[in-house]
Amino acid sequence: MPNWLLPENIADILPSEARKIEDLRRVFLDHFRLYGYEMVMPPMLEYIESLLTGAGQDMDLRTFKLVDQISGRTMGLRADMTTQVARIDAHLLNRNYVTRLCYAGSVLHTRPSGLHATREPVQIGAEIYGHGGLEADAEIHEIVIGCLQAVGVTNVRLDLCHVGVLRSILELDARAKADEDTLYALLEAKDVPGIDAISTAYAPVVRSALLALPSLYGDVSILKTARMRLPQVAGIEKALSELEVLSNLVGAEHVIIDLADLRGYHYHSGVMFSAFVSGLPNAVARGGRYDHVGEAFGRARPATGFSLDLRELARLMPAAGRKVAIRAPWSRDAALREKIKALRDAGEVVIQSMPGHENEQDEFDCNRVVVFDGENWILQNVD
Amino acid sequence: MPNWLLPENIADILPSEARKIEDLRRVFLDHFRLYGYEMVMPPMLEYIESLLTGAGQDMDLRTFKLVDQISGRTMGLRADMTTQVARIDAHLLNRNYVTRLCYAGSVLHTRPSGLHATREPVQIGAEIYGHGGLEADAEIHEIVIGCLQAVGVTNVRLDLCHVGVLRSILELDARAKADEDTLYALLEAKDVPGIDAISTAYAPVVRSALLALPSLYGDVSILKTARMRLPQVAGIEKALSELEVLSNLVGAEHVIIDLADLRGYHYHSGVMFSAFVSGLPNAVARGGRYDHVGEAFGRARPATGFSLDLRELARLMPAAGRKVAIRAPWSRDAALREKIKALRDAGEVVIQSMPGHENEQDEFDCNRVVVFDGENWILQNVD
Repeated sequence: MPNWLLPENIADILPSEARKIEDLRRVFLDHFRLYGYEMVMPPMLEYIESLLTGAGQDMDLRTFKLVDQISGRTMGLRADMTTQVARIDAHLLNRNYVTRLCYAGSVLHTRPSGLHATREPVQIGAEIYGHGGLEADAEIHEIVIGCLQAVGVTNVRLDLCHVGVLRSILELDARAKADEDTLYALLEAKDVPGIDAISTAYAPVVRSALLALPSLYGDVSILKTARMRLPQVAGIEKALSELEVLSNLVGAEHVIIDLADLRGYHYHSGVMFSAFVSGLPNAVARGGRYDHVGEAFGRARPATGFSLDLRELARLMPAAGRKVAIRAPWSRDAALREKIKALRDAGEVVIQSMPGHENEQDEFDCNRVVVFDGENWILQNVD
Repeated sequence: MPNWLLPENIADILPSEARKIEDLRRVFLDHFRLYGYEMVMPPMLEYIESLLTGAGQDMDLRTFKLVDQISGRTMGLRADMTTQVARIDAHLLNRNYVTRLCYAGSVLHTRPSGLHATREPVQIGAEIYGHGGLEADAEIHEIVIGCLQAVGVTNVRLDLCHVGVLRSILELDARAKADEDTLYALLEAKDVPGIDAISTAYAPVVRSALLALPSLYGDVSILKTARMRLPQVAGIEKALSELEVLSNLVGAEHVIIDLADLRGYHYHSGVMFSAFVSGLPNAVARGGRYDHVGEAFGRARPATGFSLDLRELARLMPAAGRKVAIRAPWSRDAALREKIKALRDAGEVVIQSMPGHENEQDEFDCNRVVVFDGENWILQNVD
């Protein structure tokens, strides 16, 4: 086996894609900054206990483990940065007031989430801690849409969901509650026959609610239907009104309600969302409320946020044209060095030809050259 | 043990430091760009064979290993990005002409290099492939000094060395050659008594050269002394003239020659350097020529470059003052939203107070507020 082959679903990012990702990264981080989000950089490796606190079994299986030579304890390679940032909020910053944090970096997965998915997404995200109200969720939605617009992606659609709907239904029947994991999987698959089969012995109101969920999908008006078809209990009423308020804040034209879209159900605690854009079949960004995660670190803090994979998003970006540059000869002539410095100070890319390589082409579109006209070094256009 | 404690020599980077690192990162990458260096992003994980090709045993011990569930093969977490980038040049890009690449990202070490050293440096660097001449080394030196100047670090000193000196000495005596690793360690420690003890049976010319090396340290004039005290063989003459040429290209005032500074000896193949700045006892950047690494990937390419740890460099940066921002109330009033958007579009940080949190202080210096004057939303200074 040649020693330059990479593991499956692991790839180098070559210049044209790297450039896109770097550009996206900067636009996102600058956009977060305009809203007062401060950047943090959590480590790639942590003890497994802190890395997986509040993260659920799915995350455990996705996390590479290794042994720390120094302590002899098991460490994990981060598969997600959200719980790391919650830990930073809860313990390191230890603020009582509203805190806004953002981050960007590689995460690693033991297995890809799909056949062609990378095992090393470049995760970027923003989180707001300390405010339990919907205003925080609304700010996150605004930022998601704003960032995507800033990089030229319009027609963003947010699919909203709420964990309170299923949780409240299951509280009505202990048998259903016992089947929670199975029901979660069936709802994820929108498997109505499966739900039908498992729910025969449930209370009729629970059974009919579960059977209704997969069809409660559509624009904001579906909330009206939901109010009729779901049990009239406080938890459901609260979830549906929250969805209604947020839909109005985001703008009903951007929103789809999908009451059976429960991805992240075990981790989240309130409104969840997935952002879809044309050109990508899967959600480009996901987020939602997870008030209980800080609690796992001994300090309960309301929290909501989102993240996305820059590698995935970069696929939507148009291929950048070849960058324009200036070619200059190699010489230690002081006047040439000054000329080159002045051009670079003005933001021009100047590539000095190494001696013997003057006639090589390269990846830049060198449409100008620095030449000596007998008196001065001047810039000349290349035909 | 509380579940928020991090492993030894692993730390979160909090907002003020993260901001510094992010700013440095952008200045460096933009500076590389002006010289025509294209960014690549190699993966965090690779099969151990490709990760350690040409990297030496020291790197092997510093590399975290884990098993790939998919292939069952051993993977390593990158402890250095240089060989990864050499692999990209050799195989993925497969260009015959001069190629300039740069990169930035976390690397991980099983053990810290010192008591307080991090096990997760943020490595950034630039490499030039395809030109074996000193012009390429000179370009790298210019970039190192230029980047550091661009972030306000002046008085950069380059300590130059050349692996050809020791290699040529050892070629003169097979017994000395057999002791290469020990001699390397003794020279690193400038342990003259140790060298004296081990070299009693060597050829006198080799013994006296080895004993001379630790004292061959100083400004460019030391090269003259070196020519007198070292054996007059082609390899040494070539190394000393290369050092002389490069010293003149960099500017003799920036250069110290240190013929016993052999860090990276096993990996490098020509001129090596360490960059020192006031305020940091260790070299802030290191680099040099490593023409044989591409060969290990089956495609010989001359190569030279440098890298540094942005975390280490960030320690030199002055603490950033609190960032100025504007506070705005939370409301869905369309005029307020427009006002806030206009301010953000102009690059201002605008922090909307979440309802109930209006009187919280925060990390930004909010010296202005958006208020309603009865007709319009206006900006008001805060005393």
